[in-house]
Amino acid sequence: MKPINVGLLGIGTVGGGTFKVLARNESEITRRAGRQIRIGAVADRDLALAQRITQGKARLTADAFSVVSDPEIDIVVELIGGCGVARELVLAAINNGKHVVTANKALLAIHGNEIFAAAQRAGVMVAFEAAVAGGIPIIKALREGLSANRIQWIAGIINGTTNFILSEMRDKGLPFDVVLKEAQRLGYAEADPSFDIAGVDAAHKLTIMAAIAFGIPMQFDKVHVEGIAKLDAVDIKYAEQLGYRIKLLGITKRVSANGADGITEAIELRVHPTLIPSRRLIANVEGAMNAVLVQGDAVGATLYYGKGAGAEPTASAVIADLVDVTRMHTADPEQRVPHLAFQPDAVMDTTILPMAEVETRYYLRLAVSDQPGVLADITRILADRQISIEAMIQREPVEGEAQTDIIMLTHRTREKHIDAAIALIEALAVVKSRVIRLRLEELDR
Amino acid sequence: MKPINVGLLGIGTVGGGTFKVLARNESEITRRAGRQIRIGAVADRDLALAQRITQGKARLTADAFSVVSDPEIDIVVELIGGCGVARELVLAAINNGKHVVTANKALLAIHGNEIFAAAQRAGVMVAFEAAVAGGIPIIKALREGLSANRIQWIAGIINGTTNFILSEMRDKGLPFDVVLKEAQRLGYAEADPSFDIAGVDAAHKLTIMAAIAFGIPMQFDKVHVEGIAKLDAVDIKYAEQLGYRIKLLGITKRVSANGADGITEAIELRVHPTLIPSRRLIANVEGAMNAVLVQGDAVGATLYYGKGAGAEPTASAVIADLVDVTRMHTADPEQRVPHLAFQPDAVMDTTILPMAEVETRYYLRLAVSDQPGVLADITRILADRQISIEAMIQREPVEGEAQTDIIMLTHRTREKHIDAAIALIEALAVVKSRVIRLRLEELDR
Repeated sequence: MKPINVGLLGIGTVGGGTFKVLARNESEITRRAGRQIRIGAVADRDLALAQRITQGKARLTADAFSVVSDPEIDIVVELIGGCGVARELVLAAINNGKHVVTANKALLAIHGNEIFAAAQRAGVMVAFEAAVAGGIPIIKALREGLSANRIQWIAGIINGTTNFILSEMRDKGLPFDVVLKEAQRLGYAEADPSFDIAGVDAAHKLTIMAAIAFGIPMQFDKVHVEGIAKLDAVDIKYAEQLGYRIKLLGITKRVSANGADGITEAIELRVHPTLIPSRRLIANVEGAMNAVLVQGDAVGATLYYGKGAGAEPTASAVIADLVDVTRMHTADPEQRVPHLAFQPDAVMDTTILPMAEVETRYYLRLAVSDQPGVLADITRILADRQISIEAMIQREPVEGEAQTDIIMLTHRTREKHIDAAIALIEALAVVKSRVIRLRLEELDR
Repeated sequence: MKPINVGLLGIGTVGGGTFKVLARNESEITRRAGRQIRIGAVADRDLALAQRITQGKARLTADAFSVVSDPEIDIVVELIGGCGVARELVLAAINNGKHVVTANKALLAIHGNEIFAAAQRAGVMVAFEAAVAGGIPIIKALREGLSANRIQWIAGIINGTTNFILSEMRDKGLPFDVVLKEAQRLGYAEADPSFDIAGVDAAHKLTIMAAIAFGIPMQFDKVHVEGIAKLDAVDIKYAEQLGYRIKLLGITKRVSANGADGITEAIELRVHPTLIPSRRLIANVEGAMNAVLVQGDAVGATLYYGKGAGAEPTASAVIADLVDVTRMHTADPEQRVPHLAFQPDAVMDTTILPMAEVETRYYLRLAVSDQPGVLADITRILADRQISIEAMIQREPVEGEAQTDIIMLTHRTREKHIDAAIALIEALAVVKSRVIRLRLEELDR
């Protein structure tokens, strides 16, 4: 059979990895796909780089638009990134009847609804395994492997940079700034790490997973996002003493909510540092590794672990998509797995629960005067809002110090209730600091 | 669209779970599959049980052959188990042009080559996600998610009963027999647990994973199988002291072997208790849970974790297959994922490496006279065979005892070399016991 002809847009880290792995494993991949997958054209602004990697084996151009309109190209692989020219190229490829494989999470999280609608109209596939958790086949697991389940929640370590930083902060007891510099030196964090650190990259990936898990549209703008820049190493230490680790988790959960017309369903969408029990497998995912925990009603908890970034792990996902698309590129569209796991007419616009209504457990740390009655005042405020305390540590005051730290873990409550209680606690004269508030998830059901 | 019509053979634990999950999640599954998946006929010898579960919603029969020849049935789900009537039914269904979904690992490991050849001729699908690791979508990950990779090795905890027993032996320091009885009482082990305990069930699953990872035929009879019945709790304790845990692993690995005509490739296929470093994620998979670690050349290490058995986790895999088959049942066969991941004409009969030629690390325990020079004799025998020692513990002899235990971890060597050395060591007058020999895998590359 004639080789399938791929146009590669962008031959940087992942593009270079894709070219290299396709060449190295050509025989293995062809034995699986039933036909050769050949990169026929490469578009990159750096033609010298493209020449070094491709060694004359593909047509090179600086004009990516010439690739998406090339009648010889069957599948376009978009590895440019961002929402500017990448969006135009992907839409142009779709409108030219070409299938698309992309690793661009920002593009899908922000413009996915437009892109998938266009693909649906054009009868082409847009595959995106590489957009979430690198080489881990989590999109396939969610869209196909768990299709029997009502997915209840997903909790994922889906950003390697922040997981590396948190692992180092815990291991070495160092502050955030110091570890970030180290991560940049080692290449685990970019020169401008703000997308990773602020949780935005994780929020892009979470948006995509929530869409395919629950059959809802992409709604990146509704994700509650908090990063790790303000995290204090002391809280990592106290969490450890209480049997917890702090991870930046992307969490999406199906919950019952009291709507205007009775109990309805809502979806939580949130990225934030989270205490999780140290004994959980996912709490032991260290360094730049990724892991996604998925709870389905039939299957229970399943976990998927691996490298979430890097040239070849991401190329592994890109090429797996190429094999799938190669197999199905002339198939009847209804034989294909729907882009967002659910049939396009079965996607439901389920409400995203506002963060104030989210119910979870909390870790609180505050500095208080070392005098009798302090704890009574604080616990009274919490009790008035039906917030009960599950565990507490009071740091032994240092000789001569007039204040000490109290650390508390609460039972489940709504965010608006804990925030109201915190405002009152901070107003107490005996409370000498802002209240540090972190969320805690047991991840057990 | 008209519902797809499924004939269910066997409505025991997994069959009942499949019926229940399909009914409970009908709307969710239909939103994904694009059409309803309906169990139209159920065959079981226990008609009263079948009636209780189906509540009149399916045609019931005690004659499974009437289901596989029913022209109204599109897909047959075989949940009878074993290699007798199940084989006949599956082949009959295939020859009647019906697609088959099965959870029967013994059948596929032993008769898979015959069954997949028949399916190929008939142009039907035989799907088997439920045959390995219950609800974990490991077959899909290996066949599709990692298709870019040259798989290097797989190491899996793929039998929940034995993992439960080993976890309990370690946690509670109890001997095998006591824990087995407890496991039977709790329902984690069957009344006749021999298939699980002896490693045969794990070997069935390993056979299937090796075939789809490496593109080789099913070769169950070539798996080296050792179970856990002879494992002594004291070795679990010593392993722990050395930083290792003992798990029953199914291991399959691609290695270079010196054949008659130069260096060729061979495949290791083995199930045995294995020491693995305690800090590895897979070492922390406890109780009846399953986990499979897959090393690919591009993706690196990926891990898949979840429930490996039980009514609903296994039903999750059966129904995921039903959704896939529903989507593709009228597709061109070459658009489908090949049964064994590789195109039928690309399956290669790679040599299975004899166990004597396998190279790995070893844990040795032996009782010796408490006298000078003993260690020199033993290490001389090892050194003569180029076997070097990585770590050693000598148990402090108890007051008045004339002998003590030596525990050693070796570097990598071939099984035939360690066995030759052990024979000489056991012949030494100062050695007072058989040498306990366990294998050790670092699982790090």
